[in-house]
Amino acid sequence: MIKVGIIGGTGYTGVELLRLLALHPRVELRVITSRGDAGKQVADLFPSLRGHVGLGFTEPDTKALAGCDLVFSATPNGVAMTHARALAKAGVKIIDLAADFRLKDPAVWEKWYGMPHACPELLAEAVYGLPEVNREQIKKARIVANPGCYPTAVQLGFLPLLENRLVDPVRLIADAKSGVSGAGRKARVDILFAEAADSFKAYGVAGHRHWPEIRQGLDAAADRAVGLTFVPHLAPMIRGIHATLYATLVKTDLDLQAIYESRYADEPFVDVLPAGSHPETRSVRGSNVCRIAVHRPHDGDTAVVLSVIDNLVKGAAGQAVQNLNILFGLDETTGLDQPALMV
Amino acid sequence: MIKVGIIGGTGYTGVELLRLLALHPRVELRVITSRGDAGKQVADLFPSLRGHVGLGFTEPDTKALAGCDLVFSATPNGVAMTHARALAKAGVKIIDLAADFRLKDPAVWEKWYGMPHACPELLAEAVYGLPEVNREQIKKARIVANPGCYPTAVQLGFLPLLENRLVDPVRLIADAKSGVSGAGRKARVDILFAEAADSFKAYGVAGHRHWPEIRQGLDAAADRAVGLTFVPHLAPMIRGIHATLYATLVKTDLDLQAIYESRYADEPFVDVLPAGSHPETRSVRGSNVCRIAVHRPHDGDTAVVLSVIDNLVKGAAGQAVQNLNILFGLDETTGLDQPALMV
Amino acid sequence: MIKVGIIGGTGYTGVELLRLLALHPRVELRVITSRGDAGKQVADLFPSLRGHVGLGFTEPDTKALAGCDLVFSATPNGVAMTHARALAKAGVKIIDLAADFRLKDPAVWEKWYGMPHACPELLAEAVYGLPEVNREQIKKARIVANPGCYPTAVQLGFLPLLENRLVDPVRLIADAKSGVSGAGRKARVDILFAEAADSFKAYGVAGHRHWPEIRQGLDAAADRAVGLTFVPHLAPMIRGIHATLYATLVKTDLDLQAIYESRYADEPFVDVLPAGSHPETRSVRGSNVCRIAVHRPHDGDTAVVLSVIDNLVKGAAGQAVQNLNILFGLDETTGLDQPALMV
Amino acid sequence: MIKVGIIGGTGYTGVELLRLLALHPRVELRVITSRGDAGKQVADLFPSLRGHVGLGFTEPDTKALAGCDLVFSATPNGVAMTHARALAKAGVKIIDLAADFRLKDPAVWEKWYGMPHACPELLAEAVYGLPEVNREQIKKARIVANPGCYPTAVQLGFLPLLENRLVDPVRLIADAKSGVSGAGRKARVDILFAEAADSFKAYGVAGHRHWPEIRQGLDAAADRAVGLTFVPHLAPMIRGIHATLYATLVKTDLDLQAIYESRYADEPFVDVLPAGSHPETRSVRGSNVCRIAVHRPHDGDTAVVLSVIDNLVKGAAGQAVQNLNILFGLDETTGLDQPALMV
Repeated sequence: MIKVGIIGGTGYTGVELLRLLALHPRVELRVITSRGDAGKQVADLFPSLRGHVGLGFTEPDTKALAGCDLVFSATPNGVAMTHARALAKAGVKIIDLAADFRLKDPAVWEKWYGMPHACPELLAEAVYGLPEVNREQIKKARIVANPGCYPTAVQLGFLPLLENRLVDPVRLIADAKSGVSGAGRKARVDILFAEAADSFKAYGVAGHRHWPEIRQGLDAAADRAVGLTFVPHLAPMIRGIHATLYATLVKTDLDLQAIYESRYADEPFVDVLPAGSHPETRSVRGSNVCRIAVHRPHDGDTAVVLSVIDNLVKGAAGQAVQNLNILFGLDETTGLDQPALMV
Repeated sequence: MIKVGIIGGTGYTGVELLRLLALHPRVELRVITSRGDAGKQVADLFPSLRGHVGLGFTEPDTKALAGCDLVFSATPNGVAMTHARALAKAGVKIIDLAADFRLKDPAVWEKWYGMPHACPELLAEAVYGLPEVNREQIKKARIVANPGCYPTAVQLGFLPLLENRLVDPVRLIADAKSGVSGAGRKARVDILFAEAADSFKAYGVAGHRHWPEIRQGLDAAADRAVGLTFVPHLAPMIRGIHATLYATLVKTDLDLQAIYESRYADEPFVDVLPAGSHPETRSVRGSNVCRIAVHRPHDGDTAVVLSVIDNLVKGAAGQAVQNLNILFGLDETTGLDQPALMV
Repeated sequence: MIKVGIIGGTGYTGVELLRLLALHPRVELRVITSRGDAGKQVADLFPSLRGHVGLGFTEPDTKALAGCDLVFSATPNGVAMTHARALAKAGVKIIDLAADFRLKDPAVWEKWYGMPHACPELLAEAVYGLPEVNREQIKKARIVANPGCYPTAVQLGFLPLLENRLVDPVRLIADAKSGVSGAGRKARVDILFAEAADSFKAYGVAGHRHWPEIRQGLDAAADRAVGLTFVPHLAPMIRGIHATLYATLVKTDLDLQAIYESRYADEPFVDVLPAGSHPETRSVRGSNVCRIAVHRPHDGDTAVVLSVIDNLVKGAAGQAVQNLNILFGLDETTGLDQPALMV
Repeated sequence: MIKVGIIGGTGYTGVELLRLLALHPRVELRVITSRGDAGKQVADLFPSLRGHVGLGFTEPDTKALAGCDLVFSATPNGVAMTHARALAKAGVKIIDLAADFRLKDPAVWEKWYGMPHACPELLAEAVYGLPEVNREQIKKARIVANPGCYPTAVQLGFLPLLENRLVDPVRLIADAKSGVSGAGRKARVDILFAEAADSFKAYGVAGHRHWPEIRQGLDAAADRAVGLTFVPHLAPMIRGIHATLYATLVKTDLDLQAIYESRYADEPFVDVLPAGSHPETRSVRGSNVCRIAVHRPHDGDTAVVLSVIDNLVKGAAGQAVQNLNILFGLDETTGLDQPALMV
């Protein structure tokens, strides 16, 4: 059994991680820490886990964590990097579900997250945990930077176009819609039920932290600096991201459907839908799958890609478990094979 | 492997049954029939099942069904009873998720469902599949009548009070709230999103088909005819039933909490919450658990019981799988051990 | 024009009051105070009011308020009573939308609200602002205690039964469901969209502040102490209260429909629906109407009353405007005649 | 009083029209027809209109309609054009809320709506009822083609850019999200609550009937053929459209904010929000306002315009009343001055 610890774990990605690990046949959860809820039983905070998780939250404790094979950090941004050196030194693998190790350039990190990076040398070493791109590097990583939710949906949608140089890379548009759980489990007025229900809005049009993360990935895929307009929106649903991507094709005598199917043929968690499909976010609710459809409206030169994920699963906790499976040489789908709760 | 067939299966209980069976390690799904969708792949209708269910719907075909060990009937009311004789004769176990075998009295059935019963002799033999009451009979049954959603939540909530003669049995009140999936997957204006969202209403106050079913069960528990007022309501959510039950205690020097905990101590799918709790339907979303809390407000003589289930799981498909496990001598939780999708 | 001031006004009852006053032909809004948002334009906080409300929030200022004919207090509990003496002395009418003046007994108030009452002499004088009961007293009041949302729906539903001595008064049950706006505009985790959407729960079963308020009103109607079990629930919708009321009839040879129609025949804001109806909360969304249906299931001795209001309108701001109309001798429907936004 | 008739009126645009006309001080509703619901009282179908609309539905009857000053047609596509000649001949003004008179080219109409046009001569004469573009022509029109919901939001958002030749007209992108009421009040499985709630999807990517309508309007504004990619999405909310528009600026030394404010300075129903704003659909719920914000992310050459309307008001019934006001020389805001129901 793989001995696992969790730092944080009282937010939505944390409870989702607990739900998934409760189903994982090769994982033994040893410790879960929380500054605010130390002393409480996990199952008291999250009754859905009664009978599944017998642990209580404890104060953050490096020694207990150092006894694990792997530690997930499911804390706010800026916390994982303060634990990373000690854990890495103790030989513990780290998967950070926050943003601390996602951006390779410490200056960019500081600009977008408003604090200097605590361990730039580990940042250089960390592997961006998008298995569909970095599977081989993840296998050998000590620190895996689990991708953000929007970046997962947007990158998986754009990759085949950019890797194959099929589109103008300077005019990419990602219009993304997220469920409200993406904003986290924080006491804030703007994400109250009575504010966010039965309404729809864009936010962060002037700039969003996932923009540099997405660009970093797309730059690598295109092997050049891309131009990206990214507009996130808040949709009145609990989970789910729907990214609608627009790009100008540089040639149109292409079988986009075949290109997408080929790119993801061996990927267990990317499902290219039949031509003409419109994926719904509910078709991935609770599952680790990204479903993608590619369109070329009116047979013109604009490609429209529809990419849906569950922001808490493929966009967070599920992808983290996928990365655990890769790190420990397990079948990548271990513990991740439940169908979505479509209705 | 247990060879399983499904009649129907394009409604919400059907797709939920498919989701659960896809996870069941001892079941092999052999055939699924649908008059309306014969020829279509299951996964085309329900993309969430892509990669999980490789079958297509076929025309109803008694021979194919007769080759199964067990057949689930997930059709509208009145269909299962037309298949039952042939299947029973062929030695196939039947679990009917509709109402055909729930009411023991054919006259009552005819009154509430508007048609004569097609096989009253099998009705007499059929076992009402509420494991918490009839586990032993279910083990030997040929036909299991899977309980309705409201009846499951309401009976599990009232049983300890009635079995122990703690309340006045002639003045029971069940105020029940259901998610909209309880109305089925039918093209109807009144359950459109734009009609049912952001609103709340009672319905069927004058009489609802689950009333005689609940009464039948409560009569048996109380060993006398009970008086029951049952008011169902439609809540703007997809899944979930919340039953709020009221009864007048005949004595008040009781530890209701201990009585409930004791009654359900060995039940894998009934979870009595700590005193003072308020179960949320989301705490059972997608899981087969019934969570119950019992209150005595202001230390008076009124017991208030809160009972929540997922109407599609413990209220339908999950309970059906639980009954399959009982019928075939498996551990009752086989294939049913996923935690709820609380967020 | 009636010169009106508002204390508070940044919560949901406040913004609703602003919406309604913007439509009122006889009201001139002179001042609106907010400790937290002083200096901001109302329309910046609530863009729906752009072009309708030109005022900004100011610091609480007794002098400015004293220049008004009427002041609405839309603050948290415990604030209005600190302003009341000064305003009453200045000859300003007060309508308090919070609870400060609702309970006639200061000891009961202190018990449920956890603080001593600041002006018990005004408490004695204040009139409980349920026009359907106290219209004549409201006309002459200096201080009107605007009723709570649950109390409005529950009292209007029970009144005809109790006033006519038709039911056993010691065994009343009120099972009430509220939209999430009823919890207020506060940064709290439990009313986040991702917590409250697609779920249903009871709360406060052990005791809720509206219980003594409802009992006070029902005691008066029954002219004796009633017994009431009150269970509030949180429903995943923005607005609306649905109260389902149960009472045991002492005689059953009654035309309940006629009794209800007669009781409310002259009430502009109570609509008794035809026999057999099930009112939906959306049928009163945004309007000041209470719709009621009365049932006697299976022709038994249990009366079931369904009563719906918009918690922010008839349950708060709309009723406050109705009280203003009464106080100033206007037609009671002035400014309150918009139909509900049913879809 | 203006004598008004309605053909149809049992769909969502119909009931919304009734709600708005009930508030209109200069309109007298004389007749409302419905083939399916003739004989029923309007208020029985829509309890929100009890006390506001005393009429019943009648069979379609040209004579009764011919006695009106204006007839709204709120029927499915293809019906209004069968009534238009007779009504026009009788001197009755017509406002069609469906698509019959929106596309100027009968061949385009036939292609997208699948039937030949019944009165091409009236099509030529009809005025497209977007007041912000065609106010002067509307004043003199006999037939007003009330714009579609998406076309209203998208055109109002793009107009200032195209009229001023500020963007590349061949690469316009409109990513639009609609509440479910936009699909109409029809018994269809895909818009059931249990299908559409808590999910998000695109639809009609290959082609949507509003695409030629939008293009027709944008072509006129740009005075050339534009290139437009239009992707509609279904959002889990009742009302509201949020259009997110993308265009490439041909020059960037512009004050877009000032250009938008100037373009709509005199428009009573277009509200340009302060720079940096993100309009929410709820800020226009139930009101006739279109709120717009214009952004230039990262000071680049992509303009992002956010445009929100209530699809049933400014996107249908409200705009129809606005057109009535124009046709009869009333102040354009008559009957349309209620603030939105933001919460």
